[in-house]
Amino acid sequence: MQKINVGLLGMGTVGEGVARLLIKNRELIRSRVGTPVHLKRAADIDVSRARNIPLENGVFTTDALSIVNDPDIHIVLEMIGGQTVAKELILKAMENGKHVVTANKALLANQGQQIFQAAHEHGVDLAFEPSVGGCMPIIKLLRESLVGNHIYAMTGILNGTCNYILTKISEEGIPFESALAGAQAGGFAEADPTMDVEGFDTAHKLAILTSLAFGMKINFKDIYIEGISSITPLDIRIAEEFGFCIKLLAIGKIRDNGIEARVHPTMIASGNILSSVKGSLNAVTISADAVGDLFLSGYGAGMMPTASAVISDIVDIARNILNRATGRVPLLAYQMANIKQIPVIPIDRISTHYYIRFSALDQPGVLSKISGILGNHDISIKSVQQKGRKQKGSVPIVMLTHRAKEAAMKQALAEIAFLNVISHPPTLIRIEDENDEE
Amino acid sequence: MQKINVGLLGMGTVGEGVARLLIKNRELIRSRVGTPVHLKRAADIDVSRARNIPLENGVFTTDALSIVNDPDIHIVLEMIGGQTVAKELILKAMENGKHVVTANKALLANQGQQIFQAAHEHGVDLAFEPSVGGCMPIIKLLRESLVGNHIYAMTGILNGTCNYILTKISEEGIPFESALAGAQAGGFAEADPTMDVEGFDTAHKLAILTSLAFGMKINFKDIYIEGISSITPLDIRIAEEFGFCIKLLAIGKIRDNGIEARVHPTMIASGNILSSVKGSLNAVTISADAVGDLFLSGYGAGMMPTASAVISDIVDIARNILNRATGRVPLLAYQMANIKQIPVIPIDRISTHYYIRFSALDQPGVLSKISGILGNHDISIKSVQQKGRKQKGSVPIVMLTHRAKEAAMKQALAEIAFLNVISHPPTLIRIEDENDEE
Repeated sequence: MQKINVGLLGMGTVGEGVARLLIKNRELIRSRVGTPVHLKRAADIDVSRARNIPLENGVFTTDALSIVNDPDIHIVLEMIGGQTVAKELILKAMENGKHVVTANKALLANQGQQIFQAAHEHGVDLAFEPSVGGCMPIIKLLRESLVGNHIYAMTGILNGTCNYILTKISEEGIPFESALAGAQAGGFAEADPTMDVEGFDTAHKLAILTSLAFGMKINFKDIYIEGISSITPLDIRIAEEFGFCIKLLAIGKIRDNGIEARVHPTMIASGNILSSVKGSLNAVTISADAVGDLFLSGYGAGMMPTASAVISDIVDIARNILNRATGRVPLLAYQMANIKQIPVIPIDRISTHYYIRFSALDQPGVLSKISGILGNHDISIKSVQQKGRKQKGSVPIVMLTHRAKEAAMKQALAEIAFLNVISHPPTLIRIEDENDEE
Repeated sequence: MQKINVGLLGMGTVGEGVARLLIKNRELIRSRVGTPVHLKRAADIDVSRARNIPLENGVFTTDALSIVNDPDIHIVLEMIGGQTVAKELILKAMENGKHVVTANKALLANQGQQIFQAAHEHGVDLAFEPSVGGCMPIIKLLRESLVGNHIYAMTGILNGTCNYILTKISEEGIPFESALAGAQAGGFAEADPTMDVEGFDTAHKLAILTSLAFGMKINFKDIYIEGISSITPLDIRIAEEFGFCIKLLAIGKIRDNGIEARVHPTMIASGNILSSVKGSLNAVTISADAVGDLFLSGYGAGMMPTASAVISDIVDIARNILNRATGRVPLLAYQMANIKQIPVIPIDRISTHYYIRFSALDQPGVLSKISGILGNHDISIKSVQQKGRKQKGSVPIVMLTHRAKEAAMKQALAEIAFLNVISHPPTLIRIEDENDEE
């Protein structure tokens, strides 16, 4: 084969990065593959996007379908995003026998089964390293490096926008809204930040990772999702006083009766290596039977880090094409026949440690009422402290609990909120405690 | 193909782990590969080593050569170590058309070119993920994930024994000898710790990583090596006061006139994520044009973490066998024709930041004499402090320098050591400063 021809769909941030890297590091990539990897066509509906990139004449088109139908193209890169046009183009490309690389986590999380099935049926490779964690090779790690391991748990910081905002709140003591505005001004958050700050983007990535780690089909709607918009500088400061920091974590764990798959603000010990992941960085810790804990950190978004992951997928597929080894690594890390149906445990049935902050009237007997209700629900208190100053007659009371059931905790908090000594709804943040597993 | 047959040579710690994992996770591995991976034979000269492992009848032998010559065996695992018998067996296995997995970093570092050449000539796969960093998939990262990147630098903690000892000295303030004795008692150091504490093991791993990262042949003897046996609790404490910690680092960097490849105790800022790598953990930071910085950490040694890396190599090779795709990934990350000859820059010609500690008589004019000599050699001082108490009339004087040439520094130190106000040979520790690159 004289060269591997690549067609790029979508020239937004990631697509532009891929085009740039394929051009800039052309010789490097050829020396890895042994055959040139050629950007034959690149499409975007926005003509202006082609202007900044040194594309050869005739490469740019506004007609994505012409790329998908080009008989000379071996690999199609879907960098459009969204779940409509992108999906149609991917399916059409596969139907035409083309291999596909996609960064589309929303599509894979919500409609992955159809996409994976299509790849399987058409006998093409589907690669998606750029869909999770930017340049971190987390997909390859799960599909290839940890093949000898039963994975127990994954804990990840998978959204740079959230981590940037939480870092700012922590370092500058500013409220969420200001930190978000700063992130938007600095290019670390979208104009509409909902997908990021409300945890959906993280959950998309968790869906993909749980599929691979546990060899299962997952229904995206089963993932519990809670964002960071209610996190206050006060909670972050108190967390620090207790030796914790607050991160938006994606948590996937295998349990006797199913898996836990949840995304929420989480307190972790400041000695936990995930605490040292600041700003827009991403990171993940994987716990498994042979390796113990393995930790990975890097830029989870951005033009060139994500493009690096795309190139790694292109080279993998090119090496498969050149060796007639398409399908060499199973799409979901396990042979299709071995993909399991594992239930996701509803959040109410998980048990974990909790941080609870109450605003209570500064009166005798308050603590006894609160702890009485908690005790009635089998929740035992590990530590209780009055934190901060009195405001309008109320003082913040902070409790850390031992492991407790989420349903019991919710019931207890509902009862406590009804007490006339409680002036605001209680704040609840889950704690991941490495040293106290079930 | 009905099954992939594996033959194990050497049943020491790693070999035992591999046998255990192949047996325990047999079903898991089959569900990854689609075909059973069968431990057909396992050899050790020490019969007692077979007793602890639930091997099937007829698997164990004391005759390693019978495995290498067994026509039914597809993959030979060399877990013997050393550069004589292990090398002969690897070469013989390859000659017999068998693929090889090896954990033998000393062999690859010293005689890798011959081994790689043999694999190339006989058209077999040679995999060596377990040779560097235990369970960390650093080889796969360099050969597959970072293929679109020009790698600028690697900085690694690659020896768990040294990191364990340095952590103990730091946390307990005990001298090197006591920390070493504790490590030996706890199973974290060998009876003869020379290879580890004098930096040779780290250098073996650096040799392998530099080959892959920079696509080059490296002569092991060109690597500068300095161990940790002269590190004192005093230097670690002073480092901490300056906001640094001391790690034994493997450093590989590409420069205009060659590469730096050096192993020595190094001061790094306590905010550097490598500082958070404690105890027997390993870690590596890779800097490259597309990804920026990528960080990886995990258990770099031990029975099961290393066995995990072996299984990952076995599965890679098995997938190649089943797809007739042997040689799919080039041995040294680049096509053989693209492997370069890049000189290693001698240590005298590098320039870096330095920490220097003098024991000087507590007299007026001492500082002016020392700084005068440094100035004569174009070494400028960033910070100077008198640290600690006077002992036998001498006080410790600590200096941090701006970037300076190693040859100039050595010459200056030799002149300073001659001053009659200096009571002991000066201590010199190199500093890696992330924020001040050339």
